[in-house]
Amino acid sequence: MPFETPQDAEDAFYDALESADAVAMQKIWDASENIGCLLPMAPMVQGPAVLDLLRSMLEQNGAVDIQVRHLNWIQTETMALHLIEERLPAPPGQPGTPPPLYAVNAFSKTPDGWRMVLHQNSPTPPPPGSAPPDMGPAGH
Amino acid sequence: MPFETPQDAEDAFYDALESADAVAMQKIWDASENIGCLLPMAPMVQGPAVLDLLRSMLEQNGAVDIQVRHLNWIQTETMALHLIEERLPAPPGQPGTPPPLYAVNAFSKTPDGWRMVLHQNSPTPPPPGSAPPDMGPAGH
Repeated sequence: MPFETPQDAEDAFYDALESADAVAMQKIWDASENIGCLLPMAPMVQGPAVLDLLRSMLEQNGAVDIQVRHLNWIQTETMALHLIEERLPAPPGQPGTPPPLYAVNAFSKTPDGWRMVLHQNSPTPPPPGSAPPDMGPAGH
Repeated sequence: MPFETPQDAEDAFYDALESADAVAMQKIWDASENIGCLLPMAPMVQGPAVLDLLRSMLEQNGAVDIQVRHLNWIQTETMALHLIEERLPAPPGQPGTPPPLYAVNAFSKTPDGWRMVLHQNSPTPPPPGSAPPDMGPAGH
């Protein structure tokens, strides 16, 4: 059943993460060589390696309950960008709440409905007053 | 003079950074409220605040010589995503070379030619063997 809107595809993406469903995950992504996925602290992967990465991540981590807040949409007839804030629970045994992550999810309208073509995470800035990690020069 | 391709707009974006030209920078971005910009270790900004952020950054930092390597393109008739690796020089007085950054640049085809709608930076992963910064759980 093809996704009729970018939001349908995005809902299915987070559902697949929350149910650790690698089969569902596969149906969400465009079959192109050009798809890309950038998870925190991992190299960017492209093409079929995206599904390999997500499959091994789901097998290792199991279901992940992600709270999602939309920050922005940019959409044309054939492509959609969703800017997201993701909140994850702390890993087992670790106290506190990890900082949220930014994400951009991009979707393309294909003959098989809307499909994901890009998922990119970025860290959110550290809280005011805390020491920022050394990530190279800020502000470019 | 409108940009005839997404690449023309992207070249102009990095030219504006390399010449600290805030006036040129303004002509590159779509005038929409939906544009977004996510610089390293800074909150995501949207709409007209994007140009305010870039202007103050250019005033503070001056010209920045960024080496750009394209990792991937995803393009339809009306929107284009460019996945990039950016290399910046070390800040003055600091030895060594900062790690590269990932970036996604998104462009939309408007009646005024191709315009930038999103610039998002993400850190690249730390080199193997180094201690990763604590950015929340990896692998989601």
